[in-house]
Amino acid sequence: MDTEVKKILKDVQNGDLSIDEAVLKLKMQPFEDIGFAKVDLHRGIRQGVPEVIYGAGKTTEQILSIVKTMRDNGQERILITRITEETAAGIRTSHPITYDANGRIGYTGSIPEADGLGKIVVATGGTSDIPVAEEAAITAEFLCNEVTRLYDVGVAGLHRLLSHKEEIMNASVIIAIAGMEGALASVVGGLADCPVIAVPTSVGYGASYGGLSALLSMLNSCASGVSVVNIDNGFGAGYLASMINHMEAKR
Amino acid sequence: MDTEVKKILKDVQNGDLSIDEAVLKLKMQPFEDIGFAKVDLHRGIRQGVPEVIYGAGKTTEQILSIVKTMRDNGQERILITRITEETAAGIRTSHPITYDANGRIGYTGSIPEADGLGKIVVATGGTSDIPVAEEAAITAEFLCNEVTRLYDVGVAGLHRLLSHKEEIMNASVIIAIAGMEGALASVVGGLADCPVIAVPTSVGYGASYGGLSALLSMLNSCASGVSVVNIDNGFGAGYLASMINHMEAKR
Amino acid sequence: MDTEVKKILKDVQNGDLSIDEAVLKLKMQPFEDIGFAKVDLHRGIRQGVPEVIYGAGKTTEQILSIVKTMRDNGQERILITRITEETAAGIRTSHPITYDANGRIGYTGSIPEADGLGKIVVATGGTSDIPVAEEAAITAEFLCNEVTRLYDVGVAGLHRLLSHKEEIMNASVIIAIAGMEGALASVVGGLADCPVIAVPTSVGYGASYGGLSALLSMLNSCASGVSVVNIDNGFGAGYLASMINHMEAKR
Amino acid sequence: MDTEVKKILKDVQNGDLSIDEAVLKLKMQPFEDIGFAKVDLHRGIRQGVPEVIYGAGKTTEQILSIVKTMRDNGQERILITRITEETAAGIRTSHPITYDANGRIGYTGSIPEADGLGKIVVATGGTSDIPVAEEAAITAEFLCNEVTRLYDVGVAGLHRLLSHKEEIMNASVIIAIAGMEGALASVVGGLADCPVIAVPTSVGYGASYGGLSALLSMLNSCASGVSVVNIDNGFGAGYLASMINHMEAKR
Amino acid sequence: MDTEVKKILKDVQNGDLSIDEAVLKLKMQPFEDIGFAKVDLHRGIRQGVPEVIYGAGKTTEQILSIVKTMRDNGQERILITRITEETAAGIRTSHPITYDANGRIGYTGSIPEADGLGKIVVATGGTSDIPVAEEAAITAEFLCNEVTRLYDVGVAGLHRLLSHKEEIMNASVIIAIAGMEGALASVVGGLADCPVIAVPTSVGYGASYGGLSALLSMLNSCASGVSVVNIDNGFGAGYLASMINHMEAKR
Amino acid sequence: MDTEVKKILKDVQNGDLSIDEAVLKLKMQPFEDIGFAKVDLHRGIRQGVPEVIYGAGKTTEQILSIVKTMRDNGQERILITRITEETAAGIRTSHPITYDANGRIGYTGSIPEADGLGKIVVATGGTSDIPVAEEAAITAEFLCNEVTRLYDVGVAGLHRLLSHKEEIMNASVIIAIAGMEGALASVVGGLADCPVIAVPTSVGYGASYGGLSALLSMLNSCASGVSVVNIDNGFGAGYLASMINHMEAKR
Amino acid sequence: MDTEVKKILKDVQNGDLSIDEAVLKLKMQPFEDIGFAKVDLHRGIRQGVPEVIYGAGKTTEQILSIVKTMRDNGQERILITRITEETAAGIRTSHPITYDANGRIGYTGSIPEADGLGKIVVATGGTSDIPVAEEAAITAEFLCNEVTRLYDVGVAGLHRLLSHKEEIMNASVIIAIAGMEGALASVVGGLADCPVIAVPTSVGYGASYGGLSALLSMLNSCASGVSVVNIDNGFGAGYLASMINHMEAKR
Amino acid sequence: MDTEVKKILKDVQNGDLSIDEAVLKLKMQPFEDIGFAKVDLHRGIRQGVPEVIYGAGKTTEQILSIVKTMRDNGQERILITRITEETAAGIRTSHPITYDANGRIGYTGSIPEADGLGKIVVATGGTSDIPVAEEAAITAEFLCNEVTRLYDVGVAGLHRLLSHKEEIMNASVIIAIAGMEGALASVVGGLADCPVIAVPTSVGYGASYGGLSALLSMLNSCASGVSVVNIDNGFGAGYLASMINHMEAKR
Repeated sequence: MDTEVKKILKDVQNGDLSIDEAVLKLKMQPFEDIGFAKVDLHRGIRQGVPEVIYGAGKTTEQILSIVKTMRDNGQERILITRITEETAAGIRTSHPITYDANGRIGYTGSIPEADGLGKIVVATGGTSDIPVAEEAAITAEFLCNEVTRLYDVGVAGLHRLLSHKEEIMNASVIIAIAGMEGALASVVGGLADCPVIAVPTSVGYGASYGGLSALLSMLNSCASGVSVVNIDNGFGAGYLASMINHMEAKR
Repeated sequence: MDTEVKKILKDVQNGDLSIDEAVLKLKMQPFEDIGFAKVDLHRGIRQGVPEVIYGAGKTTEQILSIVKTMRDNGQERILITRITEETAAGIRTSHPITYDANGRIGYTGSIPEADGLGKIVVATGGTSDIPVAEEAAITAEFLCNEVTRLYDVGVAGLHRLLSHKEEIMNASVIIAIAGMEGALASVVGGLADCPVIAVPTSVGYGASYGGLSALLSMLNSCASGVSVVNIDNGFGAGYLASMINHMEAKR
Repeated sequence: MDTEVKKILKDVQNGDLSIDEAVLKLKMQPFEDIGFAKVDLHRGIRQGVPEVIYGAGKTTEQILSIVKTMRDNGQERILITRITEETAAGIRTSHPITYDANGRIGYTGSIPEADGLGKIVVATGGTSDIPVAEEAAITAEFLCNEVTRLYDVGVAGLHRLLSHKEEIMNASVIIAIAGMEGALASVVGGLADCPVIAVPTSVGYGASYGGLSALLSMLNSCASGVSVVNIDNGFGAGYLASMINHMEAKR
Repeated sequence: MDTEVKKILKDVQNGDLSIDEAVLKLKMQPFEDIGFAKVDLHRGIRQGVPEVIYGAGKTTEQILSIVKTMRDNGQERILITRITEETAAGIRTSHPITYDANGRIGYTGSIPEADGLGKIVVATGGTSDIPVAEEAAITAEFLCNEVTRLYDVGVAGLHRLLSHKEEIMNASVIIAIAGMEGALASVVGGLADCPVIAVPTSVGYGASYGGLSALLSMLNSCASGVSVVNIDNGFGAGYLASMINHMEAKR
Repeated sequence: MDTEVKKILKDVQNGDLSIDEAVLKLKMQPFEDIGFAKVDLHRGIRQGVPEVIYGAGKTTEQILSIVKTMRDNGQERILITRITEETAAGIRTSHPITYDANGRIGYTGSIPEADGLGKIVVATGGTSDIPVAEEAAITAEFLCNEVTRLYDVGVAGLHRLLSHKEEIMNASVIIAIAGMEGALASVVGGLADCPVIAVPTSVGYGASYGGLSALLSMLNSCASGVSVVNIDNGFGAGYLASMINHMEAKR
Repeated sequence: MDTEVKKILKDVQNGDLSIDEAVLKLKMQPFEDIGFAKVDLHRGIRQGVPEVIYGAGKTTEQILSIVKTMRDNGQERILITRITEETAAGIRTSHPITYDANGRIGYTGSIPEADGLGKIVVATGGTSDIPVAEEAAITAEFLCNEVTRLYDVGVAGLHRLLSHKEEIMNASVIIAIAGMEGALASVVGGLADCPVIAVPTSVGYGASYGGLSALLSMLNSCASGVSVVNIDNGFGAGYLASMINHMEAKR
Repeated sequence: MDTEVKKILKDVQNGDLSIDEAVLKLKMQPFEDIGFAKVDLHRGIRQGVPEVIYGAGKTTEQILSIVKTMRDNGQERILITRITEETAAGIRTSHPITYDANGRIGYTGSIPEADGLGKIVVATGGTSDIPVAEEAAITAEFLCNEVTRLYDVGVAGLHRLLSHKEEIMNASVIIAIAGMEGALASVVGGLADCPVIAVPTSVGYGASYGGLSALLSMLNSCASGVSVVNIDNGFGAGYLASMINHMEAKR
Repeated sequence: MDTEVKKILKDVQNGDLSIDEAVLKLKMQPFEDIGFAKVDLHRGIRQGVPEVIYGAGKTTEQILSIVKTMRDNGQERILITRITEETAAGIRTSHPITYDANGRIGYTGSIPEADGLGKIVVATGGTSDIPVAEEAAITAEFLCNEVTRLYDVGVAGLHRLLSHKEEIMNASVIIAIAGMEGALASVVGGLADCPVIAVPTSVGYGASYGGLSALLSMLNSCASGVSVVNIDNGFGAGYLASMINHMEAKR
């Protein structure tokens, strides 16, 4: 792979390749094959963000191997989602890792200073939605965002939500996380004038059908500016919120 | 059938039957068989309300025949739900009928004075929910209730709903009608301290699945005091609201 | 928060606020933020009932902390639903609690005298529905209602149900609890002339789909006066039944 | 084909084939290929019943061609299900046919005398279920059964059903037909001591989901002796009821 | 209860009640309330069969209590379905019980001589369907039927099924049990000329959805004479098969 | 309403209200009740965008009345979605309107100059997705965005998509619209480094289930930065894309 | 585009590109943008087959425009699926087209001689499945295959299928088409020793759910060598069958 | 059974049976009944492949018994799918077995030399799909195919897939295995010109619904030449791929 990257750079040096073309080429290319996984090494270049490992269904050994490959290639800041305390401990034997049990999420390297357009508000309908919220919040913080947490502000006690009206109205992006009837997204979407990322959670019982009720609610939200990610996908919401909070002119 | 009723009354006269037993017997009994339907003639006695005909899937001829049987048996006030303007016109040729095109509902006889415990609020999320709301409201009015209509107060524009906070907080019973994400029931349920009857409607598109989204939302409402009836079942909500609004001591 | 309440009262004292406005303000306001949850302290004022903690998915520590906050604010009678025997034992170390293993429900304080309009009948289709029924019954008793239990009166043996015809016909509110085909709600709804709250349960196997079969049955009930709450939601049914059983004139 | 049948018979004549073997062979064999359909000509022998044409999705021409092939092969009595009045009229131009518009069903030949073990009761929950009921009833009559019709005896008005307790308890087989919540099958199944064939219908709206609600109810019936056929499958129920009503010793 | 039965009998003695009326009355009546269950004591009279206890979700203590009540009332032969080996052992300490681990089914008393119209064939698509098949077969044997078992005759190896063509064609009733694609019911239904009771099983993986695939297949069977019971409901199939196999003239 | 707005402004004049508080108050408030709808008049202030009317299920008369109320209140630029050519013609009799038949969308006033951060790419999988795409594109243009249309670039012919790699990689926001298997969102999401708004469409047949297949695909996208709106919700996607394309620092 | 193709060919001429590389390049490249669609012009080269237009949801004008572009580029043989007789007539005004009303399919150019490995058998369960079957059969014939049609050989009349045992056992590929319970695929899969492509159809009613029942059946087939395409996707099955019937050594 | 086979052979010897007829007869016949299973002994003759045991839901004892029966009948090479390491160890005590823990698959006998038309490519979207992929790959190798594994080439990182363009374009058959959004099948199907067998996996969370999302995606693939097998059915895909990779002229 090195050879390939070198070739691209030489081509630039030689004038055979413009800077623009070289960037495009690099975006399309380097990853390292370690057998059970193809480790993506230039995503930093390609999408401008640190690397992320989705930990669910991977053994500690597999994760360790991917982390090692990344760090060997100079990637210092790595986010690892959906891992247990045990897996985090296993990683810590070889690599320094900060772990949050609530959000089942860890990272190597440090949290950098926030540099987004504004604050990202992470709001939950209830106490049981907090694990998903922490996955979203820590992801956003890891990606250089300031995060305001508003937990347990479900719509059945509207006064709890309305007492935070200002945080909601001044947010840059809002992540609205709720299970059961998922109405939080619509109410927040109606109050705010910024993008709202709705995350249905599997919290609930009976006819909540593991998050389906909240998912359908959020997809049908009659408030404008609301979009939805997968059930319990705190990482996806945090990642997208950061992307939006770092928008800049592209011309 | 007459003979049966007479027998019960004679038994009471003779002292063979107590008043209480006679009432129970009457509750269990009279209906008239007109071939394609068994017309229930003592529901007035049995459940204390005028008679109702569910018009959907019945021909004008069938409805006319049922209405005639009822009126021949002395039932003056009859409510007929889910009928078209044409059917209403067909009935009007033989029986005086008041018809509301919005709620697709008609009735013979007059609307009596309201005598419930308080007001029934009928609230809708949007303009398209009004047909279901009118079915509910007219049913409740026909059953002697005062009705307050709050239409188009969906949660995506919370200020519209909050501007009616007082009507909501002072209601005796609230019927919350909404399609799409159905969040109205939860928000109203959180504000009010009276029973809330939630009616999902088939209003919406895409992942609203003909009212399923609203139905699941409402069943999963985290507000207390909320119960749900079938999709688009305005009549059922109006009937139940009236029952609750006419509760009295039973000891 | 105290300051806020004091301010409202002072405003009333000063004549800046009418009694009515003050009540409305109080209804909208006080809760205490204990980090992972916003404890609602004036629901007693707002909805006229003791406080309830939904225990599912909360640790004993979290519940203890909420209970302590409530009792510190003067709330003596607290209902805690969906808790195991172990959690109840954990709470008992700090607070006196009465626990019912069948209904997985406990409460601090005592059961007050019943003061409703009449009796609430709690009926089940089978023996396996009893846990949900006890959650409903104890909730209703805790909220000052007299409860009549009719267990195992499913419609496949109609004589069992009919032998209780009088209790059913004289009830103030009926809670009909059934899994499998859920037909109990319709049959009871046809016999009674009071509101029927239907609770589908997850009892069953095969095509009962965890209560879906009973839920759909109950939503489609052709009996009037029937409404439905979430699958296995005994608490919701008991709470609503109590609300209906305590209806009074509001004018 | 003739040659094949002749061969079988010759083999019997010659002693090469026992009577029993010949019957088995015939059961497995003759049908005539008319291009778009393989007409089954020996079902009379094979299953002991007249021939049936499922008319849905077939043109009048196709049905005429099948009827002609059958009659040319000596089949006089033919039942044709799911046909419109127009199709029936089209058939009548070439073959005498008795048509019932309600049940959308017709037949050539006459209704024979009933020779079953007892009476088949066809019961419906409501008036709108009658078309399915007539398909079942006429099928059963065509197959030599005496049929008792009990229409509009839904469980929400239990007295209507109980007034026919004797017919139900003395039936040989019962066909219970209902849409919406489909509870009729369970209640009838609990009262009767004979096989109950449950037919869910697509009658209903909202969460009845085109008969799904009734179907699930009936599959989950806690009454013994109940089995289920497809939604709206009146013919299937009538055919099976006749089969059961003609059971005889097989040893 | 005794008093009630005595009253009925006295009424007969006195000529106040005809024999027929007395039978009807008895059919509607006796059960004993043991708190958590209403034990049905006259089903023997009412439906002509021994008593059955559905064991799933009942503790050994509850089952023992029901068995004791029944035996105290003279019921010797009792079938108990869906019980584990441990529960069976628990029952055996007080009552003699024969238990079959495969079918998770047990009974007190002995298997009587078969007296049905013919043989009941119990066929399965695969080896994994055997538990459901044994539940059906033992139920049928307990109810006085001769049973032929044809296991692992799924349609993907048609020759296995066809090698049993004679048993299938000469059966009185067939129970066709299959998971996965459930095609066995249609193929058997096409071969046989007797009622076929189809039992979908939860055997399968992926898109079999716990028996849904087989259930829909069987409901849509294009073979006549096929009806369906709930997923894995071996008992229901065995019970109904016995009912059909004991049909007799009712006039 | 005027009085309310005046009061807020007077309060500001008097120094009783800070500018910030006044803005917040205005965001929560003004709408005009025209009977069947509450017209929201300050959304321009509240969310910084022109007004939008969701036309589906509204009569031409209702839309005309809402447009009139808005224009009477000074709102010149109004977007009207989901209207037929006939409705557009009806509106045109009273108000100048530009209508696009493909996207079933119209607007009064003119398209302003684009002033977003960059270009919004609207990509579709096939030709049949174009109506949804035009709804999104025109919405975005109406809200001051430059739009690049890439139609019929579905993943089954990857070269068609890859030939537009540069537009995709340089976009500010991408709207990926697809029916059937909905894979476009994932592939685009993997190529781009900007937010991707996925819109499932109801295009397809058989197991596409009206857009469900595409919806689930998009929710499960393993590409980061992808969120989803309701099936066929072109407007929602265009609105959100514009919001993101107009992000600015909020501190 | 021409220039691009010429460049590739020149590169080959010059020795700058090997034949293999050139083929790969061509496979990835040429299509022509006609606004609403990107016409794929080298699929003939890329996948070795004539071009296909999926006609559903395209206007006659759009199809004419695509056909013209193709023919202008030298593509003589074009298959057009899912078009009505009217559309076919419209095309015929400009281009010679052979149309089959049953299969709703047409083509320009002639059917070439069959050159596959063997025969493709197209079998259907019933008469109503024929349209899907003809779509499959004509597609296969158009792609140079000999096709044997076996219609109306559903498993409920097994003898009809078994009478064609030899065709089935000697087929090169079999397309098994069935609605309702879809058992045909399993039975054919068990008899044959060649690949079986199963096509569920939307034929059926009630619990067939528009082909879902057949689809699930076929996916769960316990016969080896069976795979499934979308509901009613005759074209897909014919195309794949042809691909398999033209397999050749690739080394 | 032996006698039957001998009879067939004698008939051939005697000239009573042609070779062709004998083959057909043998294809339809021999299996051995070992009580709980009918062991198919001539599938080698019938379908030309070694024997396969589906291990799921079978005890080690049952599998041992089937293996023994097969080996006693001369079947040396046996594939056993869906077995745990423990079961494999249990089999190894009596029979030599090679076991792969990843694919949960084992076999007796050796892997023969590959003799197919070309290579089978097994591609997965992610690392978690590898168990299903190994089941497919080892099945194909066991059936004499050369297999190329391309793991973790999901479409969200298109460059990973495109870097293997040549393997994909030169494959004889491709097995595309993916969970979550399942887009791999469409993208591969668009690149390749050989049959693609799509295998949805249950990998994913939230709205992936255990593989349903991937399944629907794959069924709706707009790429030609794609067919689908059951969720997680690696064996079925490997078996079918081998069948296609061994196609030969049949005339």
